[in-house]
Amino acid sequence: MKILIIGAAGMVGSKLTAHLIAAGKIDDQSITQLLLADIVEPSISDAAQTSAIEIQTRAVDMTQAGIAEALVADEPDLIYHLAAIVSGEAEADFDKGYRINLDGTRYLLDAIRARHDNNGYTPKFVFTSSIAVYGAPFPESIDDEFHLTPMTSYGTQKAICELLLADCNRRGIVQGIGLRLPTICIRPGKPNLAASGFFSNILREPINGKTAVLPVEDTVRHWFASPRTAIRFLVKAASINAEELGPRCNINLPGLCATVAQQIEALERVVGADAVKLIKREPDETIRAIVANWPENFDAQRAISLGFEAESSFDEIIQVYLEDEMSS
Amino acid sequence: MKILIIGAAGMVGSKLTAHLIAAGKIDDQSITQLLLADIVEPSISDAAQTSAIEIQTRAVDMTQAGIAEALVADEPDLIYHLAAIVSGEAEADFDKGYRINLDGTRYLLDAIRARHDNNGYTPKFVFTSSIAVYGAPFPESIDDEFHLTPMTSYGTQKAICELLLADCNRRGIVQGIGLRLPTICIRPGKPNLAASGFFSNILREPINGKTAVLPVEDTVRHWFASPRTAIRFLVKAASINAEELGPRCNINLPGLCATVAQQIEALERVVGADAVKLIKREPDETIRAIVANWPENFDAQRAISLGFEAESSFDEIIQVYLEDEMSS
Repeated sequence: MKILIIGAAGMVGSKLTAHLIAAGKIDDQSITQLLLADIVEPSISDAAQTSAIEIQTRAVDMTQAGIAEALVADEPDLIYHLAAIVSGEAEADFDKGYRINLDGTRYLLDAIRARHDNNGYTPKFVFTSSIAVYGAPFPESIDDEFHLTPMTSYGTQKAICELLLADCNRRGIVQGIGLRLPTICIRPGKPNLAASGFFSNILREPINGKTAVLPVEDTVRHWFASPRTAIRFLVKAASINAEELGPRCNINLPGLCATVAQQIEALERVVGADAVKLIKREPDETIRAIVANWPENFDAQRAISLGFEAESSFDEIIQVYLEDEMSS
Repeated sequence: MKILIIGAAGMVGSKLTAHLIAAGKIDDQSITQLLLADIVEPSISDAAQTSAIEIQTRAVDMTQAGIAEALVADEPDLIYHLAAIVSGEAEADFDKGYRINLDGTRYLLDAIRARHDNNGYTPKFVFTSSIAVYGAPFPESIDDEFHLTPMTSYGTQKAICELLLADCNRRGIVQGIGLRLPTICIRPGKPNLAASGFFSNILREPINGKTAVLPVEDTVRHWFASPRTAIRFLVKAASINAEELGPRCNINLPGLCATVAQQIEALERVVGADAVKLIKREPDETIRAIVANWPENFDAQRAISLGFEAESSFDEIIQVYLEDEMSS
């Protein structure tokens, strides 16, 4: 099994890489080759350097001519396409967002199609979409048949890529699956300036004895999964077959619907009351207005019936962070 | 009011042109300029040649560099983008379909955006989408919040253009509206080989004393509007303002949900029993299978509340054909 990961230097990409190297296999098949690409060269761990898997790393710009062709030249059996510029940047720079998030994906699918037309090459193709494909107003719970009305250019680009993927899937060019990931929480690392950052900040910073700012009300609800669950989703996606999935290959993933209050209650239960005291309430109208357009709750029946599973409490999500990020 | 029509040589485009020239105004504003573009040079009538409107015609390929920029160089106040290669050709030729139906639209929106960024230019932009953005399985009636799952590359390209239009609309680059037109019936002219052609053929040919083939069962249901109604939709769309429309700028238009049996009953009532005898039943499994994936019925509440209106019986649709196509 040869695997290509595009976006391998990101948080999800590097955790996926580490998981695959440790497991040595996916969907019961041994991994023989791993090609890791990103706009900056992905770094690999000591473990990776002694792995039996042949690992290559590449710093590439997917929008440049010939890059997509080069990445699929070895005909990987499984392609993870995780690469994207984030929401804030795609909103600030119209051209860059469309170039990378839309054209990059299209070039990749075109490069696969050229090989497909030539020799029948049909890789598995796992694409990370986002709940940003949805825009308010929403029903109480977004089901698998609710329409996509993105309210950002990032969400628009993800929705367009979903449509391209579905068309290539229908034509048999790829065995494609698009995953609308919940907001990943608790993101490890430093606080970031993304509007959604506070959902992780208000847990991660207090766990590490630092203060964090809460810019919205306790009643704000959102849709979450841990980084560990995100990786489990990506691995699971590689085992779904085309017949099971059918033509509607872009799916809402399960997650945990929780309010900020429920996040804070879990923090108190798992870490203690002192941690909660480190959360400073500083209402921010700009962030409140952005968050008001975000989806709150999903009915992810299709994904659940396909075997995808998420956390069922914020206590678990915090526990995952403690186990995966605080143990070393 | 300066108007650009792209796709002006097609059936809908030429009827729209004729309507605008005869009316001399749209949305209570006088039309001063009309730029008619298509892959072949649009022909204009004698009436047009004596019109007070300054009319220009151009044969252009929208996928070539500089063309989109040239078409918007005079900053038309209203742009009708009707141009597309049809479903069958987009399915047969992947690259051509995406080049014309997706890239062509993107170049046009990019050319508008360049002017917008420069001087605030923000034209009205009316885009003809299609009910081909929907794919089976369907609910009993497709409402305005049902997701887009096209089952053809043509439908995929239309759905992608809807997303691009909505993003440009949200950003204030255009005042955009996307119209998911019902199947137009009765199409004038010769029988064509489109899978949907029989819906028009079984009425038009008998009206003209010729035989027509019915390849599907009488029970097949579909969603229809007359060519005259399609033009009314396009004219109405120019008068909808952005506040009324909101960010969900692509809408299902009203139509008439009718079975083939109801079409034939109307033909008998309006034209006579002899006409019905000219319909030859020759079941075609390929066409039956294609039609089985087509939408049958819609709940077009949003468009109706915005003031769009369609026919309410097939008798009316046949009458429109008799008045508009048989009177000369």
